[in-house]
This record gives sequence, structure tokens and C-alpha cells, in this order.
Amino acid sequence: MSTDVVALLRAELGDRVDVRPAALDAARADKSGHAAPGLPLAVVHAASVADVQATLRIASATRTPVVPRGAGTGLAGGANTGGGEISLSVRGMDRVLEVRPDDLLAVVEPGILNADLNAQLEPHGVWWAPDPASRAISTVGGNIATGAGGLLCAKYGVVRDAVLGVDLVLADGRLLHLGHRSVKGVTGLDLTSLVIGSEGTLGVVVGATLKLRRLVEGERVTLTALFDDVRTAAVASAEVTASGAQPAIMELMDATSLAAVHRLLSLPAPPPGAAQLTVQTDGPVAAAEARAIADVLRAVGGIVTVAADAAEGEALLAVRRAMHPAMETLGTTLIEDVSVPRSALPDMFDAIARIERRFGLVIPAVAHAGDGNLHPNFVFDGPKIPPVVWEAAEELFRAALTLGGTLTGEHGIGVLKRRWLADELGDDQWRLQRDIARVFDPLGILNPGKVFAP
Amino acid sequence: MSTDVVALLRAELGDRVDVRPAALDAARADKSGHAAPGLPLAVVHAASVADVQATLRIASATRTPVVPRGAGTGLAGGANTGGGEISLSVRGMDRVLEVRPDDLLAVVEPGILNADLNAQLEPHGVWWAPDPASRAISTVGGNIATGAGGLLCAKYGVVRDAVLGVDLVLADGRLLHLGHRSVKGVTGLDLTSLVIGSEGTLGVVVGATLKLRRLVEGERVTLTALFDDVRTAAVASAEVTASGAQPAIMELMDATSLAAVHRLLSLPAPPPGAAQLTVQTDGPVAAAEARAIADVLRAVGGIVTVAADAAEGEALLAVRRAMHPAMETLGTTLIEDVSVPRSALPDMFDAIARIERRFGLVIPAVAHAGDGNLHPNFVFDGPKIPPVVWEAAEELFRAALTLGGTLTGEHGIGVLKRRWLADELGDDQWRLQRDIARVFDPLGILNPGKVFAP
Repeated sequence: MSTDVVALLRAELGDRVDVRPAALDAARADKSGHAAPGLPLAVVHAASVADVQATLRIASATRTPVVPRGAGTGLAGGANTGGGEISLSVRGMDRVLEVRPDDLLAVVEPGILNADLNAQLEPHGVWWAPDPASRAISTVGGNIATGAGGLLCAKYGVVRDAVLGVDLVLADGRLLHLGHRSVKGVTGLDLTSLVIGSEGTLGVVVGATLKLRRLVEGERVTLTALFDDVRTAAVASAEVTASGAQPAIMELMDATSLAAVHRLLSLPAPPPGAAQLTVQTDGPVAAAEARAIADVLRAVGGIVTVAADAAEGEALLAVRRAMHPAMETLGTTLIEDVSVPRSALPDMFDAIARIERRFGLVIPAVAHAGDGNLHPNFVFDGPKIPPVVWEAAEELFRAALTLGGTLTGEHGIGVLKRRWLADELGDDQWRLQRDIARVFDPLGILNPGKVFAP
Repeated sequence: MSTDVVALLRAELGDRVDVRPAALDAARADKSGHAAPGLPLAVVHAASVADVQATLRIASATRTPVVPRGAGTGLAGGANTGGGEISLSVRGMDRVLEVRPDDLLAVVEPGILNADLNAQLEPHGVWWAPDPASRAISTVGGNIATGAGGLLCAKYGVVRDAVLGVDLVLADGRLLHLGHRSVKGVTGLDLTSLVIGSEGTLGVVVGATLKLRRLVEGERVTLTALFDDVRTAAVASAEVTASGAQPAIMELMDATSLAAVHRLLSLPAPPPGAAQLTVQTDGPVAAAEARAIADVLRAVGGIVTVAADAAEGEALLAVRRAMHPAMETLGTTLIEDVSVPRSALPDMFDAIARIERRFGLVIPAVAHAGDGNLHPNFVFDGPKIPPVVWEAAEELFRAALTLGGTLTGEHGIGVLKRRWLADELGDDQWRLQRDIARVFDPLGILNPGKVFAP
């Protein structure tokens, strides 16, 4: 049977069907640290919409599971492909088909990297705002499939706010054009939004009409504020939000994170226990806004450093950007992704400290403090996530839900969080969501075992 | 059977079940000029979530159609209730349950009027941005059900951008909490967005968590620009968008509209054929932005008037605001709602002129020019829309679709546009959407005959 599937794929797609052991093995994992059991049947490197349609027609005819894939940078295992499954890569479909600065839209293929897209848009004076930390290595299609966020979201929105339409190939190979090219449009149900964040369970995104913004004019002003402890830093960030200031970036690093990054970058060690906010303002009143924010931060006890120029600003931001490599120096990490209302940020950091003590773990955390999205990093030894980390993660999820938050702000459910999905949604909504997915994919061949695993 | 339903409702809901002939007759119509045939069985004035649940349980048990209703200000017939149906009004559920300026969110019941909500939010320094022209008389629940827009959308977004979560009662009476309270959240499918604009076909919205904005500080600057003809005005508005300026409001009135309003307000008649743009800027750089926009408009031939102060600005805007009453002086109107990419606005006005000539009709049109949403008003005599108007409207829809636009930017499908829905969606997507609605409502009792009528 599995040989038949590969033969059928080969007959239609030729050498775009890849069964080299290294390619099959690479398709098992994303950047979550988790890999699917078994080896995929094949990796299909789709070069066109027709390739995607052909793959899905064969998959439907043979009831073979298909896992759509971009650059494989996900953090929830959503693109991991296991035994008996086809990995369907759209990474090679990476053209920008149209840029309309006058209409503030672009039409793109899904495999283009977020950063490459923005490099192509810049000469037109426009940009696509979603900026996941992975933007240099993650695709627009993957950003759409996960409903990605990033650092700039409190001011400039998440993926959901930046997509006008998607072209979707259904499980049976039919192509649908969802959404519209106009700013407004309410014709029927908003299936575009339904596809955003659906993690490959509804269809394969083969094209997108993106909502662009004009490049922000004026200077950028960057500042940091050092606080005695993480709770004070969290309170300070909430005060900034409550003051009405609208920083483009407001990132919080707790003591362990900050110390690890300073070590990695050979910077002087920060005071023990100290946590840091990194803030950037932009636009026509950037300087005045930075001054006002600095005043708020000082009033809460922050030691504020304002960058003198753009280069110094980049140096301040580099500390935050080095978070991920710094974590890798501590051990293996499970990067979590809870999100809470902004005012609950101090309480959420208290909860993390409690969980660290209770489970004897180190959980360095950064937060997109402007929007209440935290990334606690569970650090452990060895390649496999130990049970105690999952127990602690479960406590983390429960704490976030209790504070009015959610399991995942921007990474998605994938395989890593599927067992807690019903805890947040409730059983009735869980079943409703699964039944909606079945309308798109009655045979259940699209990314089975992800998100709605039983 | 119908007597039984009313008796069952009465037994549970007492005097909240209204069968007075005037109430039943009022429930047949909205503000579209269209009324449903026959008289509803009853109007239920729900006072609580439990009332809505009880109504839907009885409706499911007896397979009685239910039409949810807010203030009845819709323009597509979506809330019109006919023979054998229950009109379920949530207008009485109008409390603001929570306002959190620190988290920029509010939790409200669906029956509150948009303007009343904003009046209650103002002392907290926050507002809910969606501003349909009906905001003084339309409910937040109705705004959500239609996915409403308004004048400020190009800068401040539509309803879809301003709702974090909704509480939804399903056809069988179960209550679901969809969405979240945090800025980011990608747990499962985005059912909140699916409900926005679903026009009562998926469930009854009984609560909403709204995303707020801080009140915009600084002055507002209002200006008008008069052009020789509507095409030049449309080109000018596209030039403003292309210049990178971001007006809060940019409204276009064609010659017939402008002349009718001037007559109504006893203002001097504008030059024959002249069309007008009304622009308002806001925020910290409002004055500079207004000057830059004025330069753009003059370069295209506009005669620009800049308001000296807020009162004069209001007087300029009053001309645009008088559009609807001015239309009523011309005859009965069918208010259409096509939306196109902004650069296509001049071509869309050309198409309207062609349709006027071809069908011998007068079609005064205004446009939210900042976002490409047009409201052509088909004027006719008598209470019933004549066939020629529908033929002309069909031409209008076709022209919008050809220009990359949509049937409806902000009013919805209701009954008035259901026969063209599949033209825009395609048959495959039309069936998919209908099948999704059936997952929410397997018996088909929620607003049957609207949107997805066969």
C-alpha cells in the first residue's frame, strides 16, 4: 500500500517526490524538539498549486495522511510527519505574485520567508507587520497556519489582522479562493480567519492576499530599564500600557534569562535577581513617547538607559534577540507560550516562580509584555522531555487559564498541547471545532493527530 | 402546532413572550425597506442568557425557526421574521458587565447601542472603534452579527478587528464561550471570527469581549475638497491613500448626493456635476497631515476648504451625515454596499454611471473612500423594489466582482443578496459554508432563508 502511494505520487510528480532517508528524517521534526515516530512515506516538494492538488487527490484516493510543511520552524510539532504519512512541503512555492502599494496588499505564495517578503516589499514603501522572532527562517504560509504573532503585535497586530484572503486546497484536491482584496468584505462566513491558525487541519494554504502597512516614518528610540525583580518589571510594563503609551516593542526578560544572555554575550553580569524591560517607540512622536515611558519606568524604580542612536538601540535589542541561543547554553528547552490579559502579567510571573519551586525546575521566561504573551523556557537535560516538565507545564497552563489567559498565544497546539485543548475550549466547543474540521476534511487525512487528536 | 410553541414559550418566559399585532408586524422588517411575508409566531424579549437558551431549546424541540434580532437597523433583511418564525430580541440585554482600561477590553451584553457603549466607555479614556453610520441606533450584537464597518475603518479597523471573544447560544440551547481575553490567542480554530458576520446563522450572540482603543489625543482637523466630477474626486482619494497619509475619515459624495444634501440643508447649490471629498485627520500630527492631504487634493484640482475649528469641522461633516435623510427626499431607496480595492474606486464610479445610463436610473452614491466601500442608492417610487432596480443591482455586483471587489463590505447578505452569494463564493465554497453552518445548527432552525437560502 505505501509503495503504491509513492508510485502514484511519482507517476504524477516525478522527482519532486523525495524518499531520501535524510529528507524523510528531517520531515519528522520541527524546532519544538519533538519528532514524530516512524519515517514518512515521502516528502513532496510542491512547485505549484497543481502539485499540491495532485498530492491531495492521491492522498484522498488512498486515504493517506498528509502533513503540510513550510520551513519546519514550528514550536508545537504541527508539521512533524510520521510513519505512513506524506510530508507536503510548499517551501519551494516562494514567489511574490503581486505588490500593490496603492491598495496596501500583496499576493504571495506560501513558501516565501517572512524576512524575504519584507525585503521585497521595502522598496515599495510597505511592509507586512507580523514579525515572529523566527521571521528570518519561517514562511508566510507557516505564519498563517499557526496564526503567528511576534514582538510588534500590541501596536501592529498579529497575522489574523494582516491577511485579506487565502487560497486553500482541500483534502480532496479542490482549490478554494477565500476572502477578498478589499479592506471591507462580509460576504458569507469569514473562512479566511478560520484557516488562520488552523495548523494544516482544514486544507493546504497555497496562496495569500496580505494586508500591508506603509513603512513607519520617523526615528526609532530604544531604551532599557533594569528592575530589582521580575514582578516589579511586570508591574512597570503594565503601567506603561495603562499610561496610554503605545510602544512598538516592549519585551521583558526575567533574571535567569538576562543573566544567561549576558554570559553568552560576555557582558558584565546583571545584579542578582534583576529583570529588564526593553522598549522601542517609533513613528512621528517616538522621542516624546520614549521620554514619557522612561518617566513611567523610573517612577516604578527602573534604572533607565536610553540609546543615543540607532546603533546603540540595536545593541540594546540584541540582548533580547540572544535569548534563544542563550537558553541553548543551559540545556534542552521546551519553549512555552501562554498569554494573559496584560494586567495579569505580574501574577503570571508569580505563578512561574511557584512552579519553579514546586517542581525543582529552572524556567527562564521572556514576555512580549506589551501584549501579555509569555515564553517560559523549561530547561532540562537530554533529548526527551521528562514527565516532571510536562507536569510543570500543565500547572503553567492551569495558572494561565485561571488568570483569564490561554494555552498558546502564537505557537499553536500541534501535538505538544493537544491533550490540554479541551481544558481551554470545553468539551462542547472542542467537538464543534473538530466537526468543523471534518467538513473540510471528511476522511480525516489532513494532519491527523494534531490539534484535535482524540 | 404554532399555538403549542407560543404556549411552551409562555410557560417558560411569561410576559417576555409578546404576541401583540404591532410587535409581530414590527419584527417583519428592518431598515432595508424589505419585510418578511406573514406574521411571526411571537417576539421573545430576552432579558438574560437563560431566556435565550430556553427559547432555543423550545425552538429545537418543536423545529421552529428563530430569527435573532437587535435594534432592527440592518440593511439586508437579516433580522426580518416571517410566518411560523420566532423573533428573538436581545435588545433588552444591554448591560456593560466589565470595563478594563488597563487591558483595553470590555465585556458587554449584545443589546447595548454602539453609541451608548461608547458614552459609557469615554470616562475610562477608551472607545470601541467600529462606527457604523447607524451607531446611535444599532446594537453591538447587531454590529457583530453583520461584521459592521463604518467611516473610521481604514484607520481604526472593522468589527472583525475589535472583538476578542463572543458568548454564543447554539440552536439546541447550549452556551459556548468563544475566543479569549488576551491580545494573542491561537488555541484551536478561530470561531470568534467565524461568528462575526454570520448574521444569526450559527447561533445567538449573548455576550462579547470587545477590544478597545485609547481615546485619540490631540485635535481633529476637517477639510473638504470640491471636484469637477466624481471620477476626479475618486482619483484624488486614491492619491491621498497612495501618498501614505492616513486620514481617520475620507468620505466621497457624488454630484447627485451632494446636490440633494445641499437642498435638504438649504445650502447654496454646488456647481453642476461637482463631487466632494470630506476628510478628517486626528492624532498628534493631525494638522500637518491635513496640510499634506490638502496639497495632494489641490494638485488633483480640488478646491479645498479647511475648517478653522472643531465647530466648523462638524458643520462640514454634517453634509455627509445628512446623506440618508437627503436620499429619502428623492424617493424610496435600496442602499447598496459594494466594496473594491481602493485603486479601483474611479473605475467603480464609471461603472455606476454606465449602469445609470443603461437602466435609466438615478443612483446617487457615497463612498468610504479611505477603504473602497461604496453605498450606491438606487432610487425608485413606491414601497416595492422594481425588477429594473434588481437588474441594475446585479450589474453593479458584477462590476464590483470584476474589479476585484465584493458584494457587501459591511451590511451583509441577509435576504436581499442571497441569490448572488454563490456568484462571489463559487459553488464549492458556498456549499462548504452552508455545511459549516449546519454543524452549528443541524436542524436548520437558525435564521433559515437568510444568507444560505437554496
